[in-house]
Amino acid sequence: MLKQFKEIMISAGRLMTNVQDAAVHRKEGHFNFVTDMDLKVQEYLRGQLLSLLPGSTLFAEEQENQQLSDQPTWVVDPIDGTVNYMRGRRCSSVSVALLKNRKPQLAAVYDPYSGELFTAQAGAGCWCNDMPVHVSDMPFERALVTFGTSPYEPDLAKQGMQAAYALLLAAGDLRRSGSAAIDLAWVACGRSELFFEMMLAPWDYAAGALLVQEAGGHILQPLNDAFDFGQSACILASNPHCLDGALSIIRQVANGQLEV
Amino acid sequence: MLKQFKEIMISAGRLMTNVQDAAVHRKEGHFNFVTDMDLKVQEYLRGQLLSLLPGSTLFAEEQENQQLSDQPTWVVDPIDGTVNYMRGRRCSSVSVALLKNRKPQLAAVYDPYSGELFTAQAGAGCWCNDMPVHVSDMPFERALVTFGTSPYEPDLAKQGMQAAYALLLAAGDLRRSGSAAIDLAWVACGRSELFFEMMLAPWDYAAGALLVQEAGGHILQPLNDAFDFGQSACILASNPHCLDGALSIIRQVANGQLEV
Repeated sequence: MLKQFKEIMISAGRLMTNVQDAAVHRKEGHFNFVTDMDLKVQEYLRGQLLSLLPGSTLFAEEQENQQLSDQPTWVVDPIDGTVNYMRGRRCSSVSVALLKNRKPQLAAVYDPYSGELFTAQAGAGCWCNDMPVHVSDMPFERALVTFGTSPYEPDLAKQGMQAAYALLLAAGDLRRSGSAAIDLAWVACGRSELFFEMMLAPWDYAAGALLVQEAGGHILQPLNDAFDFGQSACILASNPHCLDGALSIIRQVANGQLEV
Repeated sequence: MLKQFKEIMISAGRLMTNVQDAAVHRKEGHFNFVTDMDLKVQEYLRGQLLSLLPGSTLFAEEQENQQLSDQPTWVVDPIDGTVNYMRGRRCSSVSVALLKNRKPQLAAVYDPYSGELFTAQAGAGCWCNDMPVHVSDMPFERALVTFGTSPYEPDLAKQGMQAAYALLLAAGDLRRSGSAAIDLAWVACGRSELFFEMMLAPWDYAAGALLVQEAGGHILQPLNDAFDFGQSACILASNPHCLDGALSIIRQVANGQLEV
């Protein structure tokens, strides 16, 4: 099943970057094109994934979703990093996780621009194009911190920028790519040490969460008592050395105890 | 000369990404590898550029420089985005500008990962792989803002993050790539509307400045009376619609009039 799953991910990525669809783009306008493309990739994934695992359901960005159940569920972001996709910024991905009993069992993030397919299986490891990958061993004071800005929620945007600034002072430097799925995949393979965003939806983080965990990193909802893959939440991913430092800053900012 | 200049840029980019040098990397350690690579690309460019234009000189990151003169001078950053380069983040470039009378006449930024070569000639236009490019016409309230964090200068880092937060509230969203030369090239071709950093060296911005200007955008040293390509300075690049809004925020932050 893993082999077929990987083929489906790569085909979805090709669909996303198919230049022939640029004709639609020019004809119907930019935003219609993106919405159409999101839906087109999602419906392709729905058909392929539900037939790959009969009895499974889809929990996806471009549809109304039921509450997450214990049944096998594909958590799907057809195009993660939509603004980058619209703007030709080449940092977008297809992100899919298979959850059973509300926990990810299988995950993939595919970047069609670089051709990198990140995959993970619960308990078995994390790979980039079939090579095993691992989080970095960089210490907190030199950490590269990736983050999201929650641009549509002003209160959270302020907290996010406060945390980013505190982390800039305490750690190494900041990056903001605009694709949470790629940021999480890159924590997993050691291209950065940390990722956080004050609010992300399950389809943004479900696949990346398993990648990070299986690559030896930590993934948390630092403002919740327990990690719930069924809800939107603040997300923190880290290599083992940077977790305590980052967790402390994010909790202090969220509690209004750290004004920087 | 333009044709030869372009060939030199592409060869320098290939040198930078030559996988055979990974052997040196493994043998001598990470930071040595990067320093060696920076020097190797710079010395390649020195040889090629000085012979392309006899009588010219080099003003470059990896050497001690004289004051910038009116003579023909190549302003060179052999690897812009060094941390990205070290970390395998595929967002680095070779950046070269030819200045005469202290103004750029010819410029190129080459991204060897995407194969995109951005070039500009004073008064003649800006191109990406020989296709003319232009800044976007997006208004300020929806602008994508790219920025640098000046991580090595705490006072400027604070101002930079304050300006970034004010721009996040007033405009669209933020991106932080880690390569100023690529950020400037991407303002020129309309993949973002704005770029700013509180302090950049001439080799970081000289080539990108001509790209932005020739693509119909504005490039400023907003805290100086006049633009001086011979000094490190705060840099702002913008499409025409976003200039006033961004300039006001950056000047207020620098003058301590805007605490956010």
